[in-house]
Amino acid sequence: MATTPPTRSPELRKDPVTNRWVIFSPARAKRPSDFKSKSPENPNNNSSSCPFCIGNEHQCAPEIFRVPPDPNWKLRVIENLYPALSRKLDHPNGQNDDSSSELSGLGRVVPGFGFHDVVIETPVHSVQLSDLDLSEIGDVLIAYKRRIEQIKQFDSIKYIQVFKNHGASAGASMSHSHSQMLSLPIVPASVSTRLNSMKEHFNQTGKCSLCKVQSKDLLINETSHFFSIAPYASSFPFEIWIIPRDHSSHFDELDNKKAVDLGGLLKLILKKMALQLNKPPFNFMIHTSPIQITDSEIPYSHWFLQIIPQLTGVGGFELGSGCYINPVFPGDAAKILRELNVP
Amino acid sequence: MATTPPTRSPELRKDPVTNRWVIFSPARAKRPSDFKSKSPENPNNNSSSCPFCIGNEHQCAPEIFRVPPDPNWKLRVIENLYPALSRKLDHPNGQNDDSSSELSGLGRVVPGFGFHDVVIETPVHSVQLSDLDLSEIGDVLIAYKRRIEQIKQFDSIKYIQVFKNHGASAGASMSHSHSQMLSLPIVPASVSTRLNSMKEHFNQTGKCSLCKVQSKDLLINETSHFFSIAPYASSFPFEIWIIPRDHSSHFDELDNKKAVDLGGLLKLILKKMALQLNKPPFNFMIHTSPIQITDSEIPYSHWFLQIIPQLTGVGGFELGSGCYINPVFPGDAAKILRELNVP
Ligand SMILES: Nc1ncnc2c1ncn2[C@@H]1O[C@H](COP(=O)(O)OP(=O)(O)O[C@H]2O[C@H](CO)[C@@H](O)[C@H](O)[C@H]2O)[C@@H](O)[C@H]1O
Ligand SMILES: Nc1ncnc2c1ncn2[C@@H]1O[C@H](COP(=O)(O)OP(=O)(O)O[C@H]2O[C@H](CO)[C@@H](O)[C@H](O)[C@H]2O)[C@@H](O)[C@H]1O
Repeated sequence: MATTPPTRSPELRKDPVTNRWVIFSPARAKRPSDFKSKSPENPNNNSSSCPFCIGNEHQCAPEIFRVPPDPNWKLRVIENLYPALSRKLDHPNGQNDDSSSELSGLGRVVPGFGFHDVVIETPVHSVQLSDLDLSEIGDVLIAYKRRIEQIKQFDSIKYIQVFKNHGASAGASMSHSHSQMLSLPIVPASVSTRLNSMKEHFNQTGKCSLCKVQSKDLLINETSHFFSIAPYASSFPFEIWIIPRDHSSHFDELDNKKAVDLGGLLKLILKKMALQLNKPPFNFMIHTSPIQITDSEIPYSHWFLQIIPQLTGVGGFELGSGCYINPVFPGDAAKILRELNVP
Repeated sequence: MATTPPTRSPELRKDPVTNRWVIFSPARAKRPSDFKSKSPENPNNNSSSCPFCIGNEHQCAPEIFRVPPDPNWKLRVIENLYPALSRKLDHPNGQNDDSSSELSGLGRVVPGFGFHDVVIETPVHSVQLSDLDLSEIGDVLIAYKRRIEQIKQFDSIKYIQVFKNHGASAGASMSHSHSQMLSLPIVPASVSTRLNSMKEHFNQTGKCSLCKVQSKDLLINETSHFFSIAPYASSFPFEIWIIPRDHSSHFDELDNKKAVDLGGLLKLILKKMALQLNKPPFNFMIHTSPIQITDSEIPYSHWFLQIIPQLTGVGGFELGSGCYINPVFPGDAAKILRELNVP
């Protein structure tokens, strides 16, 4: 982890998109630990007991759709059996936004209506997302889009968070390759903050904060339609953003051709991460715009995909302040990943 | 963890202090995991190799002060050997606030000047904070106050985050009982958000959001000067806030008498947590106000101490949206902890 010369002084940077301060501190990488290290957490590799494996569909919550639509499927979108939100609750049709949520005297409260879906990315237990070919990864991305288009019909859903947990220390409870989509009746505060920050940047500079690679030093790889960077104020070491070149506020504007292009870049980045960082657990998140808002209402907004390898934990400082301590300067992380050759 | 009847519907609540939405979802507590569980992480109990133990002072970074000031100390405040910020950098005396930080074209940037201190809470390796008697815990709290008063002299320090990591899964790298103080040249965004939320509540209701227990159902325990609650929109299961009864914006307004009183309540709460939740790893954080701002400028602000037992991990949903999923309703957590008898 000590990829920067130890003499480099710490620095604080504020991200213009997330509006968050990050402390860059190479010295932190060197601290010892007197806790014994964790034993590697071995996933269950027994596909007979995994509900996400092909042949075990009956062990799952109901299916929403599969691709292709036959017994020999390549991916499935299903309901989460332990959903965080309930699709069965009454939903007050678009009435439960922040301003009209009930104020209980203790704070605002909204009934837990929403959709919580699982995207099974492959029928085979041992296959990981980065093992799929680019068009198969493209199919997963198009499945997110298709599901978003279905959910858009519900006026009371305000935001859809697409995310992936890979590996137990990234939060995953299931080892079979999958991602999740949680459709919320509210707009999370961090999404409002992001939109406000991007708006401010746009008003100040006349430019979108994400349309262009702002510095070649932060670039990792690029394709016809996307580029990947280590963001200037990365909260986590080796954090990566994949950004569409076209100014686009909503992920579901992705078309088939761009999905394959993005699939290729995502595959390359995941391979590089595995190679350089020894197959780390990771999360990825799609940061898009609230679904009931049109592009023209938010001309400053630009969606992106954020990848976070889980290399360091967090503690009370991060929980308390919301600031992160990152031992690796993004320029160094970008250089290492950019120059890495994938066999 | 399944402390709520499984039939209770999910609900979203927005905290009036943190301004964050939380999803309450009892169903989530029941999901299985196919990752093998972690082996218990055993701390090093060998005090000969622990730099924080009495007799090993020479293995530590320089001391700031000790209590009492003699070889037989009971607590020490020392410099962190691997500081996130550097006390040696030039600091532009109060000039580096957000508005005057340098704008690099990529975002704001501030030199990493600051103080990062460790508070060694006991000379003995095997003693935990909750093993100390109430006046000894009071001494730890007064040590925080004394250090804050020293750091206040530096105009360029804007905020001091006091926090404790207990146990490896709460982020601790050292097992000897300690806490940390990180003094920052910026005000973290979450602190500004908190102050803005409290101001809005104050303007709307004419009341401070923390001065009174808002519901007896959320109360855990109380003393002459403090009360503890499970907050209405707790982000984490069994999250606890200890709040001073007196309206006070800054932690360092604490006097010796109140410190002992708080020490007693903190001890009780930590004991209850250990008993009910099987000695969980935990963090605590002191949420105070920026140090260069006086009480009269922020009449709506009220400091508190937040305790988070680490029972559930987080994943891509939380990282992406900043919302949390909590399987335990705070009223249930409060009832369990309130009714628990500590021998
Ligand atoms: N037979 C079945 N049919 C359908 N669905 C099934 C199923 N068996 C299990 N599931 C669901 O499959 C999902 C698998 O998800 P992940 O492994 O990505 O993490 P999980 O959601 O458990 O929690 C992680 O991610 C969330 C969200 O970020 C965090 O709150 C949490 O702390 C972290 O551990 C679970 O949500 C589970 O409910
Ligand atoms: N001989 C010595 N003299 C002086 N100081 C010494 C020392 N040996 C070690 N130290 C310092 O003692 C501290 C012990 O702190 P903790 O165990 O609370 O967690 P740590 O800060 O390592 O990281 C946790 O907390 C931080 C902040 O929340 C998170 O960034 C991180 O991910 C998480 O693991 C370390 O900061 C270390 O630098």
